[in-house]
Amino acid sequence: MSETDFLLEITDMSLEKNQQNYETIFSLSNGYLGTRGSKEEDFILNKKADQGTFVNGFYESEPIVYGEAAYGYAKDSQTIARVPNAKQFMFSFNGTPFSKGKISNEHHYLDMKKGILCRSFTWVSQKDEVVEVKTERFVSMTNKHFLFNQYEVTPVTHSGLFEFHGEFTTNDRVLEEDDDPRKAKSMAHLLTTQVLLGEEQEPYLETRTSHSGLCMMSSLTLSTDQEKILPRTQSTSTGYHYDFEVEVAKDNSYAVRQQVYYGESYETEFLDYLSEKAAHEAYWLDFWEMSDIQIEGDPTLQKGIRHNLFHLNQAAGRDGKTNISAKGITSDGYEGHYFWDTEMYMIPFFIYTQPEVAKKLLMYRYSILNNAKKRAEELGISSGVLFPWRTINGEECSAYYPAGTAQVHINGDISYAIQTYVDVTGDTQFMEEYGAEMMVEIARFWLSFGAFNQDEFMINGVTGPDEYTALVNNNFYTNKLAKYNLECVVNLIQESPYLQERLAIQQDEIEKWALAAKLMRLPYDKERGLTLQDDGMVYRQVWPFKTTPKEKYPLLLHYHPMMIYKHQVNKQADTVLSQYLFEGDFTREQLARDYAYYESITTHDSSLSRSIFGIVGTRINEVEKAYDYFMDTVSMDLDDVQGNTIDGIHAANLGGMWLGLVKGFGGVTIQDKELHISPVLPDKWQSLTFCIKYQSRVIRVFVSHKEVRVTLVSGEKITLAINKQSVILESGLVITL
Amino acid sequence: MSETDFLLEITDMSLEKNQQNYETIFSLSNGYLGTRGSKEEDFILNKKADQGTFVNGFYESEPIVYGEAAYGYAKDSQTIARVPNAKQFMFSFNGTPFSKGKISNEHHYLDMKKGILCRSFTWVSQKDEVVEVKTERFVSMTNKHFLFNQYEVTPVTHSGLFEFHGEFTTNDRVLEEDDDPRKAKSMAHLLTTQVLLGEEQEPYLETRTSHSGLCMMSSLTLSTDQEKILPRTQSTSTGYHYDFEVEVAKDNSYAVRQQVYYGESYETEFLDYLSEKAAHEAYWLDFWEMSDIQIEGDPTLQKGIRHNLFHLNQAAGRDGKTNISAKGITSDGYEGHYFWDTEMYMIPFFIYTQPEVAKKLLMYRYSILNNAKKRAEELGISSGVLFPWRTINGEECSAYYPAGTAQVHINGDISYAIQTYVDVTGDTQFMEEYGAEMMVEIARFWLSFGAFNQDEFMINGVTGPDEYTALVNNNFYTNKLAKYNLECVVNLIQESPYLQERLAIQQDEIEKWALAAKLMRLPYDKERGLTLQDDGMVYRQVWPFKTTPKEKYPLLLHYHPMMIYKHQVNKQADTVLSQYLFEGDFTREQLARDYAYYESITTHDSSLSRSIFGIVGTRINEVEKAYDYFMDTVSMDLDDVQGNTIDGIHAANLGGMWLGLVKGFGGVTIQDKELHISPVLPDKWQSLTFCIKYQSRVIRVFVSHKEVRVTLVSGEKITLAINKQSVILESGLVITL
Repeated sequence: MSETDFLLEITDMSLEKNQQNYETIFSLSNGYLGTRGSKEEDFILNKKADQGTFVNGFYESEPIVYGEAAYGYAKDSQTIARVPNAKQFMFSFNGTPFSKGKISNEHHYLDMKKGILCRSFTWVSQKDEVVEVKTERFVSMTNKHFLFNQYEVTPVTHSGLFEFHGEFTTNDRVLEEDDDPRKAKSMAHLLTTQVLLGEEQEPYLETRTSHSGLCMMSSLTLSTDQEKILPRTQSTSTGYHYDFEVEVAKDNSYAVRQQVYYGESYETEFLDYLSEKAAHEAYWLDFWEMSDIQIEGDPTLQKGIRHNLFHLNQAAGRDGKTNISAKGITSDGYEGHYFWDTEMYMIPFFIYTQPEVAKKLLMYRYSILNNAKKRAEELGISSGVLFPWRTINGEECSAYYPAGTAQVHINGDISYAIQTYVDVTGDTQFMEEYGAEMMVEIARFWLSFGAFNQDEFMINGVTGPDEYTALVNNNFYTNKLAKYNLECVVNLIQESPYLQERLAIQQDEIEKWALAAKLMRLPYDKERGLTLQDDGMVYRQVWPFKTTPKEKYPLLLHYHPMMIYKHQVNKQADTVLSQYLFEGDFTREQLARDYAYYESITTHDSSLSRSIFGIVGTRINEVEKAYDYFMDTVSMDLDDVQGNTIDGIHAANLGGMWLGLVKGFGGVTIQDKELHISPVLPDKWQSLTFCIKYQSRVIRVFVSHKEVRVTLVSGEKITLAINKQSVILESGLVITL
Repeated sequence: MSETDFLLEITDMSLEKNQQNYETIFSLSNGYLGTRGSKEEDFILNKKADQGTFVNGFYESEPIVYGEAAYGYAKDSQTIARVPNAKQFMFSFNGTPFSKGKISNEHHYLDMKKGILCRSFTWVSQKDEVVEVKTERFVSMTNKHFLFNQYEVTPVTHSGLFEFHGEFTTNDRVLEEDDDPRKAKSMAHLLTTQVLLGEEQEPYLETRTSHSGLCMMSSLTLSTDQEKILPRTQSTSTGYHYDFEVEVAKDNSYAVRQQVYYGESYETEFLDYLSEKAAHEAYWLDFWEMSDIQIEGDPTLQKGIRHNLFHLNQAAGRDGKTNISAKGITSDGYEGHYFWDTEMYMIPFFIYTQPEVAKKLLMYRYSILNNAKKRAEELGISSGVLFPWRTINGEECSAYYPAGTAQVHINGDISYAIQTYVDVTGDTQFMEEYGAEMMVEIARFWLSFGAFNQDEFMINGVTGPDEYTALVNNNFYTNKLAKYNLECVVNLIQESPYLQERLAIQQDEIEKWALAAKLMRLPYDKERGLTLQDDGMVYRQVWPFKTTPKEKYPLLLHYHPMMIYKHQVNKQADTVLSQYLFEGDFTREQLARDYAYYESITTHDSSLSRSIFGIVGTRINEVEKAYDYFMDTVSMDLDDVQGNTIDGIHAANLGGMWLGLVKGFGGVTIQDKELHISPVLPDKWQSLTFCIKYQSRVIRVFVSHKEVRVTLVSGEKITLAINKQSVILESGLVITL
């Protein structure tokens, strides 16, 4: 692979709707620390810039104000908070302020192969003094508390005096005046930042939240090639400003390095920039070795795929106490909350390529199991747990329960992810120690929340994944996942007397689970041969698509929820999503019929939709359609398909793209505990190559129009199915098509 | 009737839960102006007292804050505002402050016959000086801008100096710390009150709201027997304080009179207290002549009935610009909003006894027809109107749409009330000028909001009257009222080419209305022979009543709405309410079956419920049950059945009581445009007597266990049905039972 395939230039993205999209696309993070790709001088020259820096899980909360409150509503909001931002940096040269000069030859790009954001430009003063500027920035993947910037100046026409000015301050959110509920409100007024002094009188910052009781220390160490710089500083209410000067001779270069630390306690260690950078780059090279997915036949697409994999990998919390927020760590959109997106869209990538990270993500759920227990009790559910629909700290903070707490399928999603993790990795120890307990508590929830009714088991008054339909009876998706959870738990406990005893499970409890699974109501319209999204669907009329003008999409921003809910109209895949998960349970004819119907009533107003329609498309021979959906998922952020890339990456969609490639076109599924690979290649590509980890093995899959080549890169031989043919993989296999 | 039957003493009410209940029960109002029955000295001696004075329709608004907002949500709150309160008054006698004396022999009562609140007590100073105090208060029914107080002192042991102190200030709401959504938030900080000076330098007050742009002038004129008193005054931020002294000889009486004015412009007229009082008393005597309902056999009940009729009559706005708020003008509970309560619970009383007031209440709806048109447009409803669920100024201000905007049955309720008004009064001119237009716009709404689906007409995604069930398909009550509206409109327009032309109605529109009425879906379970509240009901399990402890009622204060909604549990009559309205459309067996079922799942957590179960009980021979329900409605406020009398009277329940007497036990209905009277008398009563107006006649009905006596008090002879027998009423008729 050539180096340039990994260079993402500003010209690779659409800036049509928002000139600041690059801030999101060029965001750097390591799962703990994230910073937007704003330019160094933006703090002075671009008041619209959102320069946000964030730490995953560092949030502020406030009591939620309801127009009309009711019992059991979520009490406090949680919003990821901004931490001090060190990127703010600029110079004067021989008395000419930066702002009076002109910038040309700007080159701004992300080197995804190494995880470095680079920038170079020529600055010319009014007196025709020319300075070449080069910057680089990385957020260390190997030392999570640190980000590094380097700012290098080279005067090429005159020697002279550089006066550098920087700020290490917390920037407020740049609020636009609109009511988009997906954007976070500013919490800046609730944060207090104090300048403290370290042992050597060097300043560092302590940022405290008012309500959530959290504290974040941060420090900025300036240096030039191992030598610390000690600037003049001036404290402000949000951090401090600093200045220093240096004479630089013509054609000489001078590089200022920033080592920026964030953590719970103040850290004084001065690190070697080049070693840190080398370790960081080595991490990324390893990452691509395992996780890169290659397409022959479309270089633009190739770059887009890598961009998405890059951001997906950047987004995941890896400490078992944090997770993946809906916007990664690129913005405070959706308030930095963790949703079901993790389990249903993003965790499969980690399960199949970095199982140790997947485990940490599931451990986060285990860490909030007590919150989920408490939440169930608050709701009057006598047994089991209900995981929060959106949260950072484990408490529910959805302020609109019909599209929040009512989405009890989150329980089923988590259980599904646990089972998949164990199936793919073979990590039964995790299941014994943590997974089973979560799955059992979830099984208990269904029995307590749902009810046997008319020879069926019903789960009523819930909202499925599709947020254009709310508070329905027997949502197909929810019930299907509940059924699967119950079946898995029954198997698990029947096979493990140890677990049965440890989790205090009575025999009749197992029997009830088995019965509920067996009698689970799965709405179906026999006359039309149609799987029904829920019991109320037959009453609702189809949304008047023909008379709805284009500018009225997304519907949620132009129609009252009660008008949307009473129609057959989907924001996203719902029934089709369950069919992607349980493909084996449906005939191809059924899949095709349901697909055609639900596609006709789906707006894809959610970024979670297209990827799923893409995958299921590959399974019903709608490869061209699948290709189109897939192409939209790849370019969602780069092309600003949803119109809000500026507010952060669409993290779940990144995972959705991986699903599209590996589980869609790659045809990777687990069926009856066996790995299946049944690829389908779009006409426009010459080939597709990807790797997966499966039960301690690494398997590489190459698909062209002529052959499928499966290679056992490492690990012991294994039986798997290629194109539904059972085969034993020892080193490599080629199936000619 | 004896005078004492009209005297409501403090001992007639329960003060067990709340010592301040008398403030509500002794509230006085005239439909425009209302003031709570607090004691004169409460402003100093009882900090818990709620001394509120209100003007119907005078409100403040604020943007509603939502935890998570969405398109089309109601934008601004509206809360009835407190106006300056003149009741605050006390004295010192010979230097002893009122608070240092002791009160004994207190007698506090409402003379309902005359509409006067009276109080007398003996005050004894520490030096054993005795002063007899007598007060009276009335809110004029004949001069709506005025309320009057008289405070009379008689020193009986010593002559001496009275130093009077009073305050004319706006009191803030006495906020208790709880989350009860039915209580209003304080708006006091948004009001500004300025002291201005009149032509004779007398102070008056201007109260302005910050957001709603309203202004209320008020003034207090003090006098003693025709002579004005000009006290010393001192301005404060919410009004002014005043003081004056007078020497009173032993055994002489001195009466201070307050003439308190409220209106949009300042009024200087000084009125004659005694003439105003006489006119006011005459009004009430006339009122009782027409509207009193007499029961023989239960004096306590008799008093309770009169209390309710008194408050019901006090509550109604009579200017065509205001309506009846859920708490009358006795409090700011429910924020002073007008609900469907008016049309379905209260307007029948006015239709049958004061049709001119009923007309004004309907004219209020006509005055907000444009708001209702605009609201429908906001929701994307292409044709017709949607009246606001709760409002003062005509704009929707429900901050929780599933139990607000989604209750589109408000449209059907208004149409039903219009049709009933015209049927009972014969006021076809009102129909032509105003009523038909509203009803046609409502008919248009159904066609635009609902839809033909599978050979039926469906109205989906709505909430019926029962607020423990939300966002359902085909709520029986809603559809039944929609069907009736459509049928009425089709008849009306087919008979009036004038209206068809004036309201621009095409022939095919009429045909669609007729078809929708004909195909209207009315959910029914054939197997169980049960009328279904909505289509989703069969899926919901019955609430676990057996395991729900008593202290968990009302459910809404102890369970999350999503937990309530997914069960079969009713807050109030829903299907049964429609059966009360359309009795003739159901067999007695059907009524009995539905009644038994819905009674078993109804908590009556709404004050609107018991009255309806009472009425329908009379129609299925459950007279004892009907009696029990009825008795609860009568005593709801006096006995504090709901536990929140302190927050204001339950206005709809007052109307519900009237319905129970006249339409329940009295058996008054209109069937096929004919007046029916089919009384049923509970065993415990000897007789029941009431009057109604019907098409310009006054008809008196006397019911005993032996006979039904119907008298034509005034007007021309008429054909009606007594106990289903058609008869001609010329002067009087006696049916022996």
